[in-house]
Amino acid sequence: MSLSPFEHPFLAGILGDAEIAPLFSAEADIAAMLRFEIALAEAEANCGVIPADAAAAIASRLSGFVPDMAALASGVAQDGVVIPEFVRQLRQAVGGPEGEKVHFGATSQDVIDTSLMLRLKTATDIIAKRLAVLSVGLSALADRDGLRPLMGYTRMQAAIAITAGDRIGSWRAPLERSAVRLAEFAAHGFAVQFGGAAGTLEKFADKGPQVRAALAARLDLVDRPQWHSQRDNIGELAGLLSLITGSLGKFGQDVALLAETGGEIRLSGGGGSSAMPHKQNPVAAELLVTLARFNATQLSALHQSLVHEQERSGAAWVLEWLTLPQMVLATGVALVTANRLAGQIERLGQDRA
Amino acid sequence: MSLSPFEHPFLAGILGDAEIAPLFSAEADIAAMLRFEIALAEAEANCGVIPADAAAAIASRLSGFVPDMAALASGVAQDGVVIPEFVRQLRQAVGGPEGEKVHFGATSQDVIDTSLMLRLKTATDIIAKRLAVLSVGLSALADRDGLRPLMGYTRMQAAIAITAGDRIGSWRAPLERSAVRLAEFAAHGFAVQFGGAAGTLEKFADKGPQVRAALAARLDLVDRPQWHSQRDNIGELAGLLSLITGSLGKFGQDVALLAETGGEIRLSGGGGSSAMPHKQNPVAAELLVTLARFNATQLSALHQSLVHEQERSGAAWVLEWLTLPQMVLATGVALVTANRLAGQIERLGQDRA
Amino acid sequence: MSLSPFEHPFLAGILGDAEIAPLFSAEADIAAMLRFEIALAEAEANCGVIPADAAAAIASRLSGFVPDMAALASGVAQDGVVIPEFVRQLRQAVGGPEGEKVHFGATSQDVIDTSLMLRLKTATDIIAKRLAVLSVGLSALADRDGLRPLMGYTRMQAAIAITAGDRIGSWRAPLERSAVRLAEFAAHGFAVQFGGAAGTLEKFADKGPQVRAALAARLDLVDRPQWHSQRDNIGELAGLLSLITGSLGKFGQDVALLAETGGEIRLSGGGGSSAMPHKQNPVAAELLVTLARFNATQLSALHQSLVHEQERSGAAWVLEWLTLPQMVLATGVALVTANRLAGQIERLGQDRA
Amino acid sequence: MSLSPFEHPFLAGILGDAEIAPLFSAEADIAAMLRFEIALAEAEANCGVIPADAAAAIASRLSGFVPDMAALASGVAQDGVVIPEFVRQLRQAVGGPEGEKVHFGATSQDVIDTSLMLRLKTATDIIAKRLAVLSVGLSALADRDGLRPLMGYTRMQAAIAITAGDRIGSWRAPLERSAVRLAEFAAHGFAVQFGGAAGTLEKFADKGPQVRAALAARLDLVDRPQWHSQRDNIGELAGLLSLITGSLGKFGQDVALLAETGGEIRLSGGGGSSAMPHKQNPVAAELLVTLARFNATQLSALHQSLVHEQERSGAAWVLEWLTLPQMVLATGVALVTANRLAGQIERLGQDRA
Repeated sequence: MSLSPFEHPFLAGILGDAEIAPLFSAEADIAAMLRFEIALAEAEANCGVIPADAAAAIASRLSGFVPDMAALASGVAQDGVVIPEFVRQLRQAVGGPEGEKVHFGATSQDVIDTSLMLRLKTATDIIAKRLAVLSVGLSALADRDGLRPLMGYTRMQAAIAITAGDRIGSWRAPLERSAVRLAEFAAHGFAVQFGGAAGTLEKFADKGPQVRAALAARLDLVDRPQWHSQRDNIGELAGLLSLITGSLGKFGQDVALLAETGGEIRLSGGGGSSAMPHKQNPVAAELLVTLARFNATQLSALHQSLVHEQERSGAAWVLEWLTLPQMVLATGVALVTANRLAGQIERLGQDRA
Repeated sequence: MSLSPFEHPFLAGILGDAEIAPLFSAEADIAAMLRFEIALAEAEANCGVIPADAAAAIASRLSGFVPDMAALASGVAQDGVVIPEFVRQLRQAVGGPEGEKVHFGATSQDVIDTSLMLRLKTATDIIAKRLAVLSVGLSALADRDGLRPLMGYTRMQAAIAITAGDRIGSWRAPLERSAVRLAEFAAHGFAVQFGGAAGTLEKFADKGPQVRAALAARLDLVDRPQWHSQRDNIGELAGLLSLITGSLGKFGQDVALLAETGGEIRLSGGGGSSAMPHKQNPVAAELLVTLARFNATQLSALHQSLVHEQERSGAAWVLEWLTLPQMVLATGVALVTANRLAGQIERLGQDRA
Repeated sequence: MSLSPFEHPFLAGILGDAEIAPLFSAEADIAAMLRFEIALAEAEANCGVIPADAAAAIASRLSGFVPDMAALASGVAQDGVVIPEFVRQLRQAVGGPEGEKVHFGATSQDVIDTSLMLRLKTATDIIAKRLAVLSVGLSALADRDGLRPLMGYTRMQAAIAITAGDRIGSWRAPLERSAVRLAEFAAHGFAVQFGGAAGTLEKFADKGPQVRAALAARLDLVDRPQWHSQRDNIGELAGLLSLITGSLGKFGQDVALLAETGGEIRLSGGGGSSAMPHKQNPVAAELLVTLARFNATQLSALHQSLVHEQERSGAAWVLEWLTLPQMVLATGVALVTANRLAGQIERLGQDRA
Repeated sequence: MSLSPFEHPFLAGILGDAEIAPLFSAEADIAAMLRFEIALAEAEANCGVIPADAAAAIASRLSGFVPDMAALASGVAQDGVVIPEFVRQLRQAVGGPEGEKVHFGATSQDVIDTSLMLRLKTATDIIAKRLAVLSVGLSALADRDGLRPLMGYTRMQAAIAITAGDRIGSWRAPLERSAVRLAEFAAHGFAVQFGGAAGTLEKFADKGPQVRAALAARLDLVDRPQWHSQRDNIGELAGLLSLITGSLGKFGQDVALLAETGGEIRLSGGGGSSAMPHKQNPVAAELLVTLARFNATQLSALHQSLVHEQERSGAAWVLEWLTLPQMVLATGVALVTANRLAGQIERLGQDRA
């Protein structure tokens, strides 16, 4: 057992995700925040808010910037968020009057939430690709075994015969619907956050929306008025992730039951036991159930966080930090696991010799 | 205190919903199930599955049918679901060989889930209308008070001045996004459930899809292959409901904080105290927070229910019954409450005399 | 489907509880609140706070009091809680100067929370009795079948043979521990709530604790300083209820799996199907899983309610109303169901003919 | 943002816990599992199950054992749990016939659950000490400021004056009750897990209980029959943790509200803003609310895990791994934060100059 099994030296064997986990490292966060600050300076220069020289200096002098991590931690201890100390380090690294232009008109939440959006967008791309692969895998399974008879079970009792294809369809259809949901969300859901101290872009007079649009364009995010106290898109995304893991949980539960009753499935792989070396445990199938129940639980926290009082709630915001990244990981791991499990199914349905 | 404050003799004063609650009564369920059985007979007759005479007899003899409720309860005690006894009563009411055609080729979940869809669809219409009214109400508030200064608060501390319009915007924008979400869902999400014993419509040979389409058309529901073990649409709808109540919870929390700090809001109404008769409690505002947290909790159960094993899970299904109707009610009550609260705001923002 | 399946005309067949549900009716609440007000008057008279005549008049004139329920609902709509209007009705019913002594020095939360404690205490007694019956039933099962071989399953795979007694032990032991937990809780957990407007009993000078002790004694509750903003005992009790239903959920899940794999259990009863009349569904077993997951969900709301701000939080308090009574019902129903299920087991373990 | 803010390079500034977090590292887990295996060998030697020489060899040759972590991860990928590969490495490290005696008669869950118990016990000690410190700190606050007037607020509205001591009492009393709860739990709740393949200690004939008692004694854990499918103690402990953080959440919410309305509290420290350098954010107070809501959410997962089917559920078990350690951390961090916050209160209640 470990604090976060998703980032664990040996539990990574089943719970690691080498592609998505790095997106939620401190390093990736810092890189995204740096990208925000440079893009902001450039956007502001384009709009005539800061001198073009300052933006150029910021972009060039911050290239390769490495923060003093211990000082960042002290800054968080002092301020509750990393940005005041992060910006101090950036300004020092740039130096001179140009340094003073770093982070102009922005606030902590602008940087942190935009960094989150950049990384969620990438993670969502990965999740969408894995969903597509799984859909293909399940199709192939249906092509191969779809016509085999399979006992249909209702309320944990044998009912009437269906086909393996019927069952596979009940796994695939909701995942394909969720792929559509995710694509629709991705088309509008990843928006820049830019509002300044209390959301009014008060440092920019009437140029605020122009700067924001330029910033969004540079970051390849949707342009939208600040949403720092409106967390509905985050709640919606969390719900989509949990729909995916929930449907995968049904897949896992079904496979585990097939493996238990035996005869209608043949699985390769499976986990060993320290006490019974011959036993083949349907580890991947069980794990899908775990991850479904995990996300179903975390989702509640993300929806509690919708009660985000006033212009910025420290309480509701940090609750997102504690839960959303792990939901993304759980979804990524569940898809990797489901793809592996689909590949382990050597036969689904009855032998018809 | 009472078992369900949403259906309570005196708590109805704040938690009742005379429009939505009746949709989830046993009577409304029975009426919708009856509608299903009649429409099914007619659809089957249209498709040549049962004689036209039988369908006509079913429709006419079941008009005005009143079930023996005590026998239904005994049936549920026996079977876990109401349909076997319900169908027995229907067949008896129709009588003769026509009676035997009642419920032909259908199963319990077809009737119960389709009845749910019919009623959720109506409830969603009501919710959408209330959302639209609230949007208008908040617009009117913004028109009247939008330019008044209001202190912006971040992390529970006065930050810089914003306007009442800025704050109202943070209430309205997520609700308007959720209205769009709900409309998109309503366009495809309410589908007939029709699959027979284990989802294969095995009694209909190749006419199954045709009967299902005819049934869907008669019920004004979307036609879709059976989804009885695929609960993603239900999980998605539950998420939308909770997004709405979550955004209303922010509205309520903000108003309660404004009322506590005083000076920037003037509210009419408000609740009295038995110990301090002069006190005006922001009851509606608090209630919005309650309902947000309630739905954020229940949502977890609906997502746990996505792990719906095999062709039909009694365990996962009944968990929906215990939570989804109350989520719908909570959403309906929250919107009524929010509309009332918006009307109680006599002034938002600072006096500028 | 219905708003609350626990109080439903036909779902009562599996989800009704004729003993516990009435404790959470409006009528039972009113009776308990009336009991509070009369006991308060008597306690105050004993302590010389109000005249003995007034207490006697209150007790005699309120005997048989029937409230105007519609007016109570209007009162709740006005005040958010029922007490202001309830007390107005009581004072009117008593009449004269004695009437003015009704509710002296008390506040809404005193009455409502104490009424809750009185009814929770009774419900807990019933739950404890049902737990004891179940323990006996499982013991009898172990006596009869305990030595029969049973395949042990780990990770959904046959492992090595155990005995039916081993499995029964895994059902019984946690329930017996929870029976102890519940008894320990009951010894100190049901305390009178009495604090006045903001918890300070400010109307009683130094007689407050004396009045409270007398009130507690009359109500057969524990005497303790006001706890209206300290909800830990409620969170603890909710946890105990969920421990019970969780352990019963394991029992149900195990039986459902035994019924699915077949051969190692023989069950009488079970539910019928409208499509497959021969099928015997393990309805009771599945229901135990449902109720476990229901309580595991609701528990989260009760713990969210621990964040009960200042002297009284309307938001956190009403969230308890929406969830705690149904948790109690779920626990009561689960125990009834488990006792029924234990009685349906005609054989557990393998035949050894 | 990061995957687990509790183990984050810079968020550690507010969410780190240098004392408790290491208990849930892979290294600490390995150390505890190693301790189990050595104690098991010694207990078995004492009971005549394995030769004394073998136990001595195991103890001496495993002293300083360092696992091949990459191979452990591969083992987990293969088996779903670490123990088969871990034991393989241990046996190789011991070598010879003595090596074969490592892990004799035990199974994966014995090692992993006992390791968890060992570390939870230590963490609980730390939590109990921090609770005691907080109790003292709040007492000191009451001694200093307890008689100052403070406005009592009910339902977010000023009600009547109370004292700072009244408010402090509402923070302290539930924490002191939870300290008692935790002490009572600690007296019986941390038990060795030892059951073998399916809980029957089938390798030990009648010596099983004797070996288990000796093992428990060596590990300073309670001796109890195997409980691997009975997770009630874990659910109970999780509930106690959440009761603590919930009560701390009330403390935090109250302080944040005091800081917002101003005048009745003077706080030192507090967090800075990148946009408004003069602002002092009540970061510690908000964080307590976050952690309360986090644990209230996670608790649901631990109670879902009570449905632990058959002799060992991979699905339910791994869900504990994903949630329980973070609940412990959240509790530890909340107590550190509360102690810091209590120290930041320079004055509570009104100035009485």
